[in-house]
Amino acid sequence: MLMLDRAIRGTGTAAYVAYGSSHNPDVRYLTRFRTDDPVIFIKRPEEKGMIVVGQMEVARAIRESAATPISRAESGLLDMMKEEPDPVKAIARTIARLAGGDVLVPPSLPYQVGHELEALGRVVIDANSVRSMRSIKDTWELLQIQAVQTAAEAAMDCGVSLVRNAVTVKDVLFHQDVPLTSERVRAAMHKSLADAGCHALDTIVSCGKDTAIPHVTGTGPLLAHEPIVIDIFPQHDYSGYFSDMTRTVARGEPEGDVTEMYQAVREAQDRGQSLLRPGATGQEVHQAVVDLLAERGFESGNRGFIHNLGHGVGLEVHEQPSLGPGGGELAAGNVVTVEPGLYYEGTGGIRLENICAITEGGSVCYTRFPREFIL
Amino acid sequence: MLMLDRAIRGTGTAAYVAYGSSHNPDVRYLTRFRTDDPVIFIKRPEEKGMIVVGQMEVARAIRESAATPISRAESGLLDMMKEEPDPVKAIARTIARLAGGDVLVPPSLPYQVGHELEALGRVVIDANSVRSMRSIKDTWELLQIQAVQTAAEAAMDCGVSLVRNAVTVKDVLFHQDVPLTSERVRAAMHKSLADAGCHALDTIVSCGKDTAIPHVTGTGPLLAHEPIVIDIFPQHDYSGYFSDMTRTVARGEPEGDVTEMYQAVREAQDRGQSLLRPGATGQEVHQAVVDLLAERGFESGNRGFIHNLGHGVGLEVHEQPSLGPGGGELAAGNVVTVEPGLYYEGTGGIRLENICAITEGGSVCYTRFPREFIL
Repeated sequence: MLMLDRAIRGTGTAAYVAYGSSHNPDVRYLTRFRTDDPVIFIKRPEEKGMIVVGQMEVARAIRESAATPISRAESGLLDMMKEEPDPVKAIARTIARLAGGDVLVPPSLPYQVGHELEALGRVVIDANSVRSMRSIKDTWELLQIQAVQTAAEAAMDCGVSLVRNAVTVKDVLFHQDVPLTSERVRAAMHKSLADAGCHALDTIVSCGKDTAIPHVTGTGPLLAHEPIVIDIFPQHDYSGYFSDMTRTVARGEPEGDVTEMYQAVREAQDRGQSLLRPGATGQEVHQAVVDLLAERGFESGNRGFIHNLGHGVGLEVHEQPSLGPGGGELAAGNVVTVEPGLYYEGTGGIRLENICAITEGGSVCYTRFPREFIL
Repeated sequence: MLMLDRAIRGTGTAAYVAYGSSHNPDVRYLTRFRTDDPVIFIKRPEEKGMIVVGQMEVARAIRESAATPISRAESGLLDMMKEEPDPVKAIARTIARLAGGDVLVPPSLPYQVGHELEALGRVVIDANSVRSMRSIKDTWELLQIQAVQTAAEAAMDCGVSLVRNAVTVKDVLFHQDVPLTSERVRAAMHKSLADAGCHALDTIVSCGKDTAIPHVTGTGPLLAHEPIVIDIFPQHDYSGYFSDMTRTVARGEPEGDVTEMYQAVREAQDRGQSLLRPGATGQEVHQAVVDLLAERGFESGNRGFIHNLGHGVGLEVHEQPSLGPGGGELAAGNVVTVEPGLYYEGTGGIRLENICAITEGGSVCYTRFPREFIL
């Protein structure tokens, strides 16, 4: 929180203010409180920060939040609402009074709240400090991400095992005498996550031509001799941290260049991971993968390798830093995916995604799951 | 979308603009597109609305979004980023150009985007039209909520069955020779949801004194002769719609007034549901329940019935309308919970929650799950 104190002082504001539910990752990071209802977070320099919650939530916030909880009544909000019928104006006036001066806010602050705060003092956007703080994980955060990755691998093992053990009838995969569908594999993986106290949305189990569109989640029966992309990015129910991993498998070798694509993507992933260290830029790691793929005959940009090499992972599945064009210097504590992919309409797609932490000496890969294409 | 056209015309703006990922329920409602990365939504009167997505997402957005997808390149954003190095300024300038004039925005627009738009024209906050549109569900939305509620009841049946079939040893519940914990019940319920293509966060399985704090999720072994509150609010993975339900059960009668509390809460729920119809206000339905509980000897406010009677449910688990102080007129198409509860520190809590849709003629309760206290 020293960085936040510096940002408050550097902008000449009185306090940092955030507003929202824990679905807002800045609010969740600063309060460590899970709530579907919006809370106010206010931190002045040298203070721990306070969280304003409904009366009903005070006892839970004392147990669970990193900030000091006060009720809406204690914050003066309920009295303010008697004078000021517009609830957002009342919230803004309460924030301004508690802050005691101008405020520093996250870019994600709801516009209506920011607009009302402007009427009461200067509102300065903190574009970078919380974002930077979030991009450098401490030991506790690294353990949370490793825990989710462990759950992701157990789920991936369920999914890959279903494909591996399926019976093939006329190129359709069957499990227990009914077609093995994308939906069945996804449900089995999600049940495995539930056992580990995690959940995932939009898990991709795509097959054949669909794999050429990276974020199509997939539907219907899985087929032999076609690439099957399995991409899962689970979140821990309690801590809110994500992990992210992808494997591509096939039952029987696909036609065309798909196996060459797999080999190139695998090499590209090794190359990308080998370059991760503090001081390397996201741009140069991405470019090294583009160059390697070009050597193997695969283009990047609108065809072939059509996305960035990777992204930060934390309380959001996509956050800082970026491994891609414009990506800045990596630092110890960053957690990034390394996920080269190749996509060709009419042929299909291949993607392999690991998650790695940048360390003082280089990097460590949290993903242990084997890379095996033809099952 | 007629209501949105009226709001655009009524404010003299050129277009309605939203910005965010599908974790922003306004963006999700307007685009029907699932994405972890922010998209721009722009709708001018009489038009369907367009969604600006990354090149990689165009093919999926054509399949899945209700809005007309265009890529960042087609939108001019990529060219703008060459002139304007600040990405948020470039986004604002692109929005302003596509909107062709002043903009109407949701209260939840990120403050940084709103602030940059202010430099380019008038920015008007639409406090009510999208909120109202979202509070009146159409037939498709009602079906989504019923589907999630069906999944919620299957999960509740798993949870309640574990409690019912547990073996009691010295007042601790056991299942398969190990203590039946809050965590095991929650995991079993979440696995049931995964099978139905749904997921839930923060499912409450609390026991004993913990039940006096409504949102404590619960931990550790479940006990006989104590109230066990099970509150689940699952979301459909694909549609994003929520449902919400609560049951309180006990293995063996608890001490004290808990059974009287249960009877009063059950009566209160019946009373509340019986009053739901278009034109009734959320305030009067809530007050009727407060009155009934007072007749039974239970106070409301800081002790006893300490929360609102209910809330709207849709793409957020808590949305409009409110059944509580200040709650306005109900209308056909509203979906609300009816969830009276009583909470006493040192004794415990009781809550029963159903979900109901307001119809032209009154209301229909989607919750079919039995209310049974002593198992």
